[in-house]
Amino acid sequence: MRTRNPSISGQGSPGQRSTGEPTDKRLIRGVRSRRLVLARAVDIASLESLEGLSFGRLATETGMSKAGIQALFETKQLLQKDTVGHALDMFRDFVVHPAEASPPGVPRFRELIGRWLQYAEQPLFAGGCFFAANLTQLDSHPGELRDLVSGALRAWIARLSAELKHAVAQGEIVNADPDLAAFQIEAVLRSANTALRLGDTTVTPKVWRVVDGFLTADG
Amino acid sequence: MRTRNPSISGQGSPGQRSTGEPTDKRLIRGVRSRRLVLARAVDIASLESLEGLSFGRLATETGMSKAGIQALFETKQLLQKDTVGHALDMFRDFVVHPAEASPPGVPRFRELIGRWLQYAEQPLFAGGCFFAANLTQLDSHPGELRDLVSGALRAWIARLSAELKHAVAQGEIVNADPDLAAFQIEAVLRSANTALRLGDTTVTPKVWRVVDGFLTADG
Repeated sequence: MRTRNPSISGQGSPGQRSTGEPTDKRLIRGVRSRRLVLARAVDIASLESLEGLSFGRLATETGMSKAGIQALFETKQLLQKDTVGHALDMFRDFVVHPAEASPPGVPRFRELIGRWLQYAEQPLFAGGCFFAANLTQLDSHPGELRDLVSGALRAWIARLSAELKHAVAQGEIVNADPDLAAFQIEAVLRSANTALRLGDTTVTPKVWRVVDGFLTADG
Repeated sequence: MRTRNPSISGQGSPGQRSTGEPTDKRLIRGVRSRRLVLARAVDIASLESLEGLSFGRLATETGMSKAGIQALFETKQLLQKDTVGHALDMFRDFVVHPAEASPPGVPRFRELIGRWLQYAEQPLFAGGCFFAANLTQLDSHPGELRDLVSGALRAWIARLSAELKHAVAQGEIVNADPDLAAFQIEAVLRSANTALRLGDTTVTPKVWRVVDGFLTADG
């Protein structure tokens, strides 16, 4: 994700630059403030979608000034885009990158599913899966935000599919259509997210039964 | 769904009752006005969730007076509940009831899936599946609205499962776990709704491949 340079966009008007504060200190403060705002923004957007974000609300909930937050993010649209980017970074840090320590194919696939379930159960974002919450909200509204969130969905399905294809190529599993399997498994994960939000914890073993059904050596 | 008597809640203040208009004419007008407002409300709620509903917006979009709409529905919460009820009626009229003309088991199951796909493709509601749109919006917010929408989801999965169980009992298909199959198929339908909103029409044959995989006689 693009992150605007806080020494430019994070400092607002030129007047602020003449305070005599050292540049590196201002820069650090800008980075820290952005992080603080985005940490709250991903929670709000997971609970109430990206439409629920506003400078005023973030000011109230972080204790920062509304003008300060506006100086950091400029427009609501840029704030929303940065929120999606931040959520994507957190998702990758929690689910995707740790799974890369496992060998490709079935072990890494199982690790991706296991970490995704933790991501939805704990949950990483206050409202559960950030992408599920925003997909249904954005799907009828073409634009940059929809492209970002639907791109994240496509990338996630492609990642699941790539591990299944590797498992097939290595003879670990038999599956005639890994792309269709990845589509089905992603659908089940998204439904599991709904079930978890509704308090149904029996869904986790259900997901594993579905996943295990796709990871058999006898087709 | 409960529908309040329009001769009571639909006529607002007692002052309106003294216009001398015959009771049955007022009653008919109340029913017609409610229908007009709800027809628009289900579209708005499918596009932007039930939170997007307001008396003011509905007045603008139907050409009725805000006070008139408020007299019909009393509170935003009651308007939201009636909107869910209306969406459920429309869903049943379009998907569920016509499928009951087909014999139970596999034929009725396939008819339910076929009609559901039409419901999402055409779509019946401007924003696609009403329940998918509102589930992810409500799932983190306990309350009556969440109970209504999640109840509709459970009833739909139970209906799919019942037809699969009938098909198993009649020896039409072999399936060790119809409840799990219904859970998976509903998940795939909800994902297909997202894909259709994003303009991906290749998802319809994918859904049929998944469904056909569950309707085999060799397990």
